[in-house]
Amino acid sequence: MSNIADAIQALKAAMGEKLSTARPDLESHGTSETYYPLTPPDAVLFATSTEDVAEAVKICAAHGCPVTAWGTGTSLEAHSLPVKGGVTIDLSRMNRMLELRDQDLCVRVQPGLTREELNVALRDKGLFFPVDPGANASLGGMAATRASGTTTVRYGTMRDNVMALEVVLADGRIIRTGSLARKSSAGYDLTRLFVGSEGTLGVITELTLKLQGQPDCIAAAVCDFADVESAVSAVIAIVQMGVPVARVELLNDVQLRSVNAYSGTDYPEKTHLFFEFHGSEAGVAEQSATVAEVVEDFGGGAFRWATKTEDRNALWKARHTAYWAAKATFPTGQWIVTDVCVPISQLAKAITETEADLAAHGREAHILGHVGDGNYHVLICADPDLSGDLEDTLKLADRMAERALALGGTVTGEHGVGLGKMKHMAAEHGEALSVMAALKRSLDPQNILNPGKVVPLN
Amino acid sequence: MSNIADAIQALKAAMGEKLSTARPDLESHGTSETYYPLTPPDAVLFATSTEDVAEAVKICAAHGCPVTAWGTGTSLEAHSLPVKGGVTIDLSRMNRMLELRDQDLCVRVQPGLTREELNVALRDKGLFFPVDPGANASLGGMAATRASGTTTVRYGTMRDNVMALEVVLADGRIIRTGSLARKSSAGYDLTRLFVGSEGTLGVITELTLKLQGQPDCIAAAVCDFADVESAVSAVIAIVQMGVPVARVELLNDVQLRSVNAYSGTDYPEKTHLFFEFHGSEAGVAEQSATVAEVVEDFGGGAFRWATKTEDRNALWKARHTAYWAAKATFPTGQWIVTDVCVPISQLAKAITETEADLAAHGREAHILGHVGDGNYHVLICADPDLSGDLEDTLKLADRMAERALALGGTVTGEHGVGLGKMKHMAAEHGEALSVMAALKRSLDPQNILNPGKVVPLN
Repeated sequence: MSNIADAIQALKAAMGEKLSTARPDLESHGTSETYYPLTPPDAVLFATSTEDVAEAVKICAAHGCPVTAWGTGTSLEAHSLPVKGGVTIDLSRMNRMLELRDQDLCVRVQPGLTREELNVALRDKGLFFPVDPGANASLGGMAATRASGTTTVRYGTMRDNVMALEVVLADGRIIRTGSLARKSSAGYDLTRLFVGSEGTLGVITELTLKLQGQPDCIAAAVCDFADVESAVSAVIAIVQMGVPVARVELLNDVQLRSVNAYSGTDYPEKTHLFFEFHGSEAGVAEQSATVAEVVEDFGGGAFRWATKTEDRNALWKARHTAYWAAKATFPTGQWIVTDVCVPISQLAKAITETEADLAAHGREAHILGHVGDGNYHVLICADPDLSGDLEDTLKLADRMAERALALGGTVTGEHGVGLGKMKHMAAEHGEALSVMAALKRSLDPQNILNPGKVVPLN
Repeated sequence: MSNIADAIQALKAAMGEKLSTARPDLESHGTSETYYPLTPPDAVLFATSTEDVAEAVKICAAHGCPVTAWGTGTSLEAHSLPVKGGVTIDLSRMNRMLELRDQDLCVRVQPGLTREELNVALRDKGLFFPVDPGANASLGGMAATRASGTTTVRYGTMRDNVMALEVVLADGRIIRTGSLARKSSAGYDLTRLFVGSEGTLGVITELTLKLQGQPDCIAAAVCDFADVESAVSAVIAIVQMGVPVARVELLNDVQLRSVNAYSGTDYPEKTHLFFEFHGSEAGVAEQSATVAEVVEDFGGGAFRWATKTEDRNALWKARHTAYWAAKATFPTGQWIVTDVCVPISQLAKAITETEADLAAHGREAHILGHVGDGNYHVLICADPDLSGDLEDTLKLADRMAERALALGGTVTGEHGVGLGKMKHMAAEHGEALSVMAALKRSLDPQNILNPGKVVPLN
């Protein structure tokens, strides 16, 4: 398409060596953590400043050329695959911490900084950034996908932890949303509009993030349950009692078996809950005692404790490598990783029905859940050598999404829409989807920002 | 204007006695808690269902007639004054609790239900709705203005506590945003877009709200400080240590003097902090001990405790009647009530500079603050018998807003834009204000929803 070619020519003139059309760069930016095929852009811009991004978007706008933002490429729904080609703006070189305001418990960062890099930089300040999606994602990408994860039950999602943004709009203008104040009633909440918009309304070029003080005391514990229902019932009781657990993760029996095989652990091959407690020494002791009591009420096994840092790391390693553990059971398989979120009262039903559906179709159900939020993930494997198997596998994932909607939930708790969940958007939002489309049209009338994602247009 | 007259005629035909053009109804819906003059609408619709609202908005849209939503009229920035006339939709008859989901810690309500009515209904379920702006506002109005208040430091604002909405759009279509899931990454965050939009993007006809378990133990305490700086420094230390205080309110010396005079209390006439602690018995004891230690470090006086319900109520009554206490010092004065929010590191500076500015202009500075959030309120009195005094008073409020912006804050932490803060929107948002205007135009192209508020158009 000549508009793309013209845009690339103009970008080359403006950006010089920051623009690449080298095949390895195009291919690395056409790859995702999903089953979607290689989808390279026509060029990659390695931006080093907000001004680079603004100028590039302005040039692309002048030529109607698609623009896709890129952080670390760890999205699980192919958000950053440039399905209409065009220019991918790689933000990984914009990775500085710009300003730490420790009294205000916040930090200004560039979008390419990763969450682990940020936490390393904060370590000796007694602070940390809590949102933990597992992958060492870029903070800009985490905001764009409204990421959350294991600690969300205590500290919230990116929605709750982004205070302010700098954003380049579809016409290249630069705006700032939010402020350094903890709250505001001054107009529409543009920060929350851009968080979760997956690069379709603007490109995030700076973020101000809330920070937390490192807790004096951290403890982790694991225990097993007879089944998913009793584990989830225990979690409901814990949440209702207001115990501020920092993490509560469910792994089902299938997943535990894979974890043991992969990590050399010896957990009973039953449904487990993994807990983490943050607070003062007395606070953690009290939370732990309360949770242990509830767990016993629901027939859970004895707690295995980990209080030393290395023991906690080993415990959480088992959880964090769960994806790789599942994949190791069929390394050449095409793995579908999908997530939904339901009201917690419906979680046991949602999970057990999903397990039954998978079993009825001869699939292993690797299930992981951030159960304090009602959010769970399923890993399902398709055999690439079996014709039609990927399609059958996707149907199982679709039914899981439909089940979540029927129970009052959402088709994605944290992975985002990307390409994989587009087909469910109308069912989830109904008429509200037309409002999303109206917003998209008003802020990106040419549909150049990450086209083909979030909202179907026309 | 004949479009308004035509709309009212059509509404009368459709709605019968629910539509009123009686002078007392018009006047009661043209009054605000501000210095703005009586601004009655042309008619008031007492809606009893979402369908009423949808049909009324459809009729108004057909005639280009302004529509203003009305909850309890307790807004402090004249949000609901129908400055372009037209029809006010009074939602106070839509005041039912629709569904309590105790396992999911949430409730569906109609917008006219007030927060106190909700909490009465929840009392024997062991649950409560935490957002407390002081006034017994309607929950729809609280969402529309992104209300917060004394408990926000612990439980968040309406932004954090609204899970889902039903909204009537400017063309009468009904949409639903959000779901019963605690989090979602499925598309643009429409819930947060309507929260704080002050009725300019749609009329809220149903809300799903997060609830909290009633804490086992509540304690409150008061202590005095030599000055604002030492009080604020103590609060910064407490917030940094992660102590989950449920309330921390500052009242300055002037305000304390008025409180004593009004409530017959005998607090020392110095800057005070009012604290409330929620948790288990051990948790509250630990929080209190930590806070008492910090307070001592910053030269605070001894804690006066209130653990019994009646003592706590008496203590908070002094805080909650602060407005009336200030107004009692000059009952016939024109009182300006204004709020800003700044980064907490800048709060002492913001308050002391405001006190100095007021003193330099011969005004008493009644100051109250939700200081854990960096949010503070000033009550300033204009003498209606002094020509130009209201204008001079407003200039003091304007400088307070400008000072907040210069310090990285916002011109309103919780009162909203309404009429009073419109003039500061460009200074606060810069180019982002044009994005707000674009959103407004895309969702309300005729500008019939609460015209003249939030975003200046053209």
